[in-house]
Amino acid sequence: MPTATVRLVDPNAAGGKVREIFDDIMRTKKLDFVPNFWRALATNPDQLELVWRQLKTLMHPESAGRASKLDPRTREIIALAVSATNGCSYCVNSHTAALRKLGIDTETLGEVLAIAGLFNQTNALADGYQIEPDVLPPLE
Amino acid sequence: MPTATVRLVDPNAAGGKVREIFDDIMRTKKLDFVPNFWRALATNPDQLELVWRQLKTLMHPESAGRASKLDPRTREIIALAVSATNGCSYCVNSHTAALRKLGIDTETLGEVLAIAGLFNQTNALADGYQIEPDVLPPLE
Amino acid sequence: MPTATVRLVDPNAAGGKVREIFDDIMRTKKLDFVPNFWRALATNPDQLELVWRQLKTLMHPESAGRASKLDPRTREIIALAVSATNGCSYCVNSHTAALRKLGIDTETLGEVLAIAGLFNQTNALADGYQIEPDVLPPLE
Amino acid sequence: MPTATVRLVDPNAAGGKVREIFDDIMRTKKLDFVPNFWRALATNPDQLELVWRQLKTLMHPESAGRASKLDPRTREIIALAVSATNGCSYCVNSHTAALRKLGIDTETLGEVLAIAGLFNQTNALADGYQIEPDVLPPLE
Amino acid sequence: MPTATVRLVDPNAAGGKVREIFDDIMRTKKLDFVPNFWRALATNPDQLELVWRQLKTLMHPESAGRASKLDPRTREIIALAVSATNGCSYCVNSHTAALRKLGIDTETLGEVLAIAGLFNQTNALADGYQIEPDVLPPLE
Amino acid sequence: MPTATVRLVDPNAAGGKVREIFDDIMRTKKLDFVPNFWRALATNPDQLELVWRQLKTLMHPESAGRASKLDPRTREIIALAVSATNGCSYCVNSHTAALRKLGIDTETLGEVLAIAGLFNQTNALADGYQIEPDVLPPLE
Repeated sequence: MPTATVRLVDPNAAGGKVREIFDDIMRTKKLDFVPNFWRALATNPDQLELVWRQLKTLMHPESAGRASKLDPRTREIIALAVSATNGCSYCVNSHTAALRKLGIDTETLGEVLAIAGLFNQTNALADGYQIEPDVLPPLE
Repeated sequence: MPTATVRLVDPNAAGGKVREIFDDIMRTKKLDFVPNFWRALATNPDQLELVWRQLKTLMHPESAGRASKLDPRTREIIALAVSATNGCSYCVNSHTAALRKLGIDTETLGEVLAIAGLFNQTNALADGYQIEPDVLPPLE
Repeated sequence: MPTATVRLVDPNAAGGKVREIFDDIMRTKKLDFVPNFWRALATNPDQLELVWRQLKTLMHPESAGRASKLDPRTREIIALAVSATNGCSYCVNSHTAALRKLGIDTETLGEVLAIAGLFNQTNALADGYQIEPDVLPPLE
Repeated sequence: MPTATVRLVDPNAAGGKVREIFDDIMRTKKLDFVPNFWRALATNPDQLELVWRQLKTLMHPESAGRASKLDPRTREIIALAVSATNGCSYCVNSHTAALRKLGIDTETLGEVLAIAGLFNQTNALADGYQIEPDVLPPLE
Repeated sequence: MPTATVRLVDPNAAGGKVREIFDDIMRTKKLDFVPNFWRALATNPDQLELVWRQLKTLMHPESAGRASKLDPRTREIIALAVSATNGCSYCVNSHTAALRKLGIDTETLGEVLAIAGLFNQTNALADGYQIEPDVLPPLE
Repeated sequence: MPTATVRLVDPNAAGGKVREIFDDIMRTKKLDFVPNFWRALATNPDQLELVWRQLKTLMHPESAGRASKLDPRTREIIALAVSATNGCSYCVNSHTAALRKLGIDTETLGEVLAIAGLFNQTNALADGYQIEPDVLPPLE
């Protein structure tokens, strides 16, 4: 029975900077609760602020007043591919839920994971044979 | 000076199944050379066939007579995100080159890597705090 | 309480290609149930087929009409070593069970894990000191 | 001969936000050159800003007007332990250099890496045996 | 419900070398129980001895009659940073508990994890851009 | 051009405990030189001793007066599978060389890497779907 190693901050008891960030998270992500991840980070308010600011800028660029050349689904697909590669269960659950909200169906989800799985395989093979790059990559 | 741990198969000297697969790789990927990765795998022809068949099906579905709900750029973005997460240099070089061929610009490439980097951070945080999933994920 | 992010396919309700592959899995692996892994992959039948074909070829070569120079126990030992390194709990459980079926005792299992653990240590040391290869590896 | 997959931004040609951040990096880190890492990130100025702001806040808290309960050496030791675990060669070189500037001697560096190596071993063992936590961790 | 893949050795039933090591673990670590990790390793007594000897030497140098230039808290911080990076839940729980015993507060714990998270991010970025070292590291 | 972050200890200039261990390494491994890995560890003699003692016990049990139920080739295969999974280039080169000395041919080497690659794929899939164990593993 694994459990968080810190006591999660209670959103109802939070004040000041933490309260503001919790509100911004719920508003930006259109959620009616504060996910456990942010409640854990809130035990260190500086860290909460740093991670949220970065995540908001990269994953919710429209809320951060920034243009992005990637669409929201592609951004969440990257998050899921990374999380599956790292085997982070909280993250896999969270990004799968986000992709479902964005309308991904089970078969497409399977395609994302199949490709992530495939390149975990080829990564191990390329590293296992110590293969050198074919050509210098195109520098711009 | 790291180098491949096997002698790469010379495409000009290859025959039989290996020759056919090399030709299929160049035709499918529109390349005029056989990448080192495939030349290394060809030292074990069974393995070459298995990996190529899977990669062709998932990454070149149109050539494999299969419908995909992901576009080619998204598929390569998954490959790059996984490769950056694993720190596989051959793979990073190869998938960056593929994304360039698909027309990605440096700023968008940076956005992909920024998001991959961000979730490597949040993965470590979620694991480091042992945070439990918020809710049961939506089963379809 | 982590749980699968997709609804597992019910073997009794499966038809067509999925049904055939489920039967092949149980027959090849001498199991009287379909493991959850395959029931999850079956949500994307193409992926189920790709992964099973590859796994059958590499791990059950006799069923795939292929000669292998590795014995079944060595093959499962590789699987366990990789799974322990990646910290994949489903995979560790599954390959430990497979090794038990092949007759491995607890002490030998411990030796496998001890060696896997040792090289996770030396890998971190070699990378932490950025040590260069001693000699060019012997090319055949 | 692996090389960066993007053309590094020339500090002498940089202007605007990039120029300001480059100056802040050199001033904060007391360097007379801009490390390649930042020159690569600068191809995507938004990303450069996000990563630098975060790194400055966490690693140079005094410059960011923030109190830290960890001393500079401990902070760099964490960076090196993570980098050795991930096998990131640029990062290992960079954080080893930073620790040298902070006065660490070779034997202490070895002790850091020995401990990092040890826990890469025990991590693989704990995962390889799928050991459950002993007790609920002390919540504060 | 994941569980250990081996039956944990019962400390009360242990004899000989295992009993001696269990006692040494409890005495050295000032614990009144034998953690599950050591009870699992004890299924292979040689392995138990090897890992304990190494861990005692590195993490409890005073008990091993050895001088260390790192303080106990720094040593545990390295352990936690590595464990968070690898996503090893048993290890994260165990090293968080050890740091609590050493008096770390929640905010400092958060700072450790924030730094570990940050460098998992920069590692992925440095690998994702394939950035080369700036300068040859200073050899002593 | 990455290079070791410490000055490798010159075997000809080594004395005392380091000299003895270097001799034991060359004798046990039947080598006429001291690999760079050990020359780097020797910058911290305690660490050199700890790692060598453990590696000798596990990988050269006959020299350490210990029975092993695994044969030398299986032990090196585990080492290679772990090293390919971690992408540790020094380690891949070293264990490939060791397997060559033990007589492995290129095709069998390919089979080892193919299986390691396959399970890096399935690990990512099992983690990406968060699949739960099928059954409680058989406790002995």
